[in-house]
Order: sequence, then structure tokens, then C-alpha cells
Amino acid sequence: MSGVVNFKNCGSVLITGANRGLGLQMVESLASGGFSPGKIIATTRNISGKLQELARKYCNVHIVTLDVVNQESIEKCAEEVGQLVEQEGLNCLINNAGINVVADFHSVTAEKMMENFHTNAVAPLMITKAFLPLLKRAASGGGSGTMGIQRAAVINMTALLGSVELNWGESAKNLKWYPYRTSKSALNMVSRCMAVDLEPDGILCMAIHPGWVRTDMGGSEAPLSPEESVASVLSVIGGLTEKDHGSFLNFTGEQLPW
Amino acid sequence: MSGVVNFKNCGSVLITGANRGLGLQMVESLASGGFSPGKIIATTRNISGKLQELARKYCNVHIVTLDVVNQESIEKCAEEVGQLVEQEGLNCLINNAGINVVADFHSVTAEKMMENFHTNAVAPLMITKAFLPLLKRAASGGGSGTMGIQRAAVINMTALLGSVELNWGESAKNLKWYPYRTSKSALNMVSRCMAVDLEPDGILCMAIHPGWVRTDMGGSEAPLSPEESVASVLSVIGGLTEKDHGSFLNFTGEQLPW
Repeated sequence: MSGVVNFKNCGSVLITGANRGLGLQMVESLASGGFSPGKIIATTRNISGKLQELARKYCNVHIVTLDVVNQESIEKCAEEVGQLVEQEGLNCLINNAGINVVADFHSVTAEKMMENFHTNAVAPLMITKAFLPLLKRAASGGGSGTMGIQRAAVINMTALLGSVELNWGESAKNLKWYPYRTSKSALNMVSRCMAVDLEPDGILCMAIHPGWVRTDMGGSEAPLSPEESVASVLSVIGGLTEKDHGSFLNFTGEQLPW
Repeated sequence: MSGVVNFKNCGSVLITGANRGLGLQMVESLASGGFSPGKIIATTRNISGKLQELARKYCNVHIVTLDVVNQESIEKCAEEVGQLVEQEGLNCLINNAGINVVADFHSVTAEKMMENFHTNAVAPLMITKAFLPLLKRAASGGGSGTMGIQRAAVINMTALLGSVELNWGESAKNLKWYPYRTSKSALNMVSRCMAVDLEPDGILCMAIHPGWVRTDMGGSEAPLSPEESVASVLSVIGGLTEKDHGSFLNFTGEQLPW
């Protein structure tokens, strides 16, 4: 696996939750890479200083406001992005925005479960629906060739903790995060359902685990820096083809069990 | 697999959603079986005539009101059941209540996703939490022997449609039920998480697919009658041991992929 980010055949990428953490790092890595996409659309609810700085530094970075759990905001964002990408459509939608409503068996409530599910599993579905016309446009513009980001792709940032199979044995005794784990399993199903529905339009759809990363969510103990994780994730995304359609991959490119 | 329902070593069973469909059939099959549990607690939001008839006919059938998405109702139900089972505790909790909010990619909304998730995935978690003291009491009363319904067990009625792995190929092109499929994948994760947390108390936890059944939900085309499905499901539940803890089984007893 090389750390080279190759998005040269990708006209436009949209990243949700781009104000910090992995989302911000994706914007930076894509913008500063040797083969940067034509348009990098960074969406966020609240624009951070760091994101603003990137938009000032790189003219292909565009910031668009998006609150992922607000349908009106999703539709307004899709409209703005439509004006940005015009006839070319949107090549790559990265559903990255996510939260971790930490709760174990004893502290979990219905409200905590619903909140995490809405942001992590429902929002990527509603966002993908709203961007479907733009994704279709890009997919048909890319000809009828192989699937991938040169045509159109939906990437869902999921987590290994969403694997039901791996939630067993010694490793399951830590990180008993009911809302987070459940929301990511749900996202995996949403991802797989969407792969089935997007296939006739030639739109690739898959889910990827970014590794355990030193972000606000991952904490300082995590083994990967945001730069390392994102270099690896973007390298995998850049190389996706039909065989990866509907898959659940690790940031290293290997398949993970559901 | 025999169709003989053997719950003779099980003091008490609670079934949610017992007013119709599989829930009602479970109550009837358990009550009329040769080895009927001491107490069959049938919970429902609205008591149907058929359920009332069963309670009149069989003195071990007790009806308790429960709205599975209402926390106050869950707590009140747990209190009432506590008075019914007394020092023996509750041996078997069957989280059967479920809904199918039918929606495909085009008709799905955030509200539909949330509604199905709440009833099918969150409610079993909140109900299990509320009944934990009664399950613990039964588990410790059953000694430190093998796991199973003679001690304490939580059974989550899930669905094959919740398998992310099986949602692919030809079969995935039908039944594109986003809210239902996602809620059942989420329930599978909840089930697995709870298995990890309930193990130290000797409480077995697993998820079972009842097959495609001719109920209001399954429709008239389904291959199985409620009697056939329930005979098979209860036979599997009656024979559960440690090896089935944390599993996802078909009504025939075979393992299903997550």
C-alpha cells in the first residue's frame, strides 16, 4: 500500500464533517497532494479556523454548510453543490461526519441510541439520496467503463467496532459502546443496501474503517496519526474498482467481516 | 429437530408483542404443549380477543400491558412481572415485538428509519435492562450449571433480512426494506453486545430468525405457518446451551452469517 494520494481522475470530492479530525485531514491531504481533485467540497455545520485556512490556501477547496441531521440543510447543500459542480456532477461523496455518544449497558438510554443512529447511519442515507442526481451525472459522464472514483462513488466511513462478528472474545470486553457500535452496524447495512440500489447507475458504494486514529474521538492513545490514516484511506479509495463494490474494508485495504 | 416444545425446566417465559402473529402463537404453543412453563407472561400494548381467550383457557397465561417504546411502560411492566414471578425471577425473556416500516431507497425518510430502529433494536435493549434484576435472580437460582432457559435467557427475534452478508446478489434485489433491514442489523449488534455483558451473570443471550411466516407481516405467500415456525423456534430455544451464547441462528437451528 502506497501513501500516494491519486485523485487525478476524480473531478470532485465532497467530504462531510470536514471541520476537524479525519474530515479536515482528508481535505488537507487531498488539497496538498500531487494529484488533487478538481473540486474539494468540505461540508460542516460550523466552519473551523483550520478549515477556513485551507480554503484560503487552496483554491480548489470549497466550504458548504451542512447539518447532516437536518433534511432542509441537506437539500440546500445539494443545491449549492449542484451549482459548484455543474454538468460534471459529483464524482466522490465521502460520508465522514460521525459522532460517538458513549454509553455502556448501564448508562445507555433510548435517546442516546437514537441520536447516534441518526447521525451515523440515517444521515449518510439521506445525504446520498439528495446527491443522487449529481452522482448519476458524474457516473454517466465517466462512460460505461469500470466502477471507481473516476466515475462516481459513495464512501461511508464506518468502524471496525461496527462488525458484529468481531464483537466477541477479549476485544469485546472493552469499548462497550452500545450507541456507537449499533450505529456503525446499521451504517454497514445501509451501505450494503445502497450498493444494491446504486449499481444500475454505475455508482460504486462501500464502507471503510479508518483505523484507530489520534483525533478528538480516537483519543491520544491511538496508534495512527490522522495523516497516516488518511493517506492509507485515500489510497484505498483511489484504487477502488467493481470488485470492491458493496465491501467493508480496513484502511489497509483488507476485507473485514460484517 | 423435533417439534416437541420442552420448557418443563423453565419456570417463566415473557413474550413481547403477544397479541398477534408469532407472539400470540408462541403463547398458545407454550400453553398447550405437554411441558408448559410455570408462568407464561404475554405482554402487549392492546389486548386482542384471541389473547384474552388463551388467558381464560390456560391458567398459567398472564397478560401484562407493555408499550415497548415507552420507558415508563417498560418500568411499570417490569414491576408487575416482578410481583408475578417473585423470588424465582424470570427465566426466559423473548423480545418478539417488532414492526416493518416498509420503505425503499426512494421512499425512505429519516423518520421511518428512526421509528423502525426504536421498536426493533432499541426497545429490546431497554426491556432487557429493565428485566435484568429478574433475570439475574433466575440465573442464580438455577445454580452455576450450564447456560440455558432452565437458568436465564434473553432471546431476540431477529430476521435473516438483518444479515448484511446475505444482503447481496439476486436475493438482495427484492425486499429493499431500508428501515426493517437496518433495524434488524442493529438488533443483531445489540444482541451481541448484551451477550458480552450478560455472560458474567450466567444469562444466555442470542438472536433467532423465525423463518418467513404467514402472519400479517409475512403475508400469505410465506412458506411456513405460524404453528410450524413457532414449534421449530421453541424447540431451538429449549435446547440452547453455552455454545449458542451470542449466536445468530435460523429457526432450523443452523448458524447464520452476520
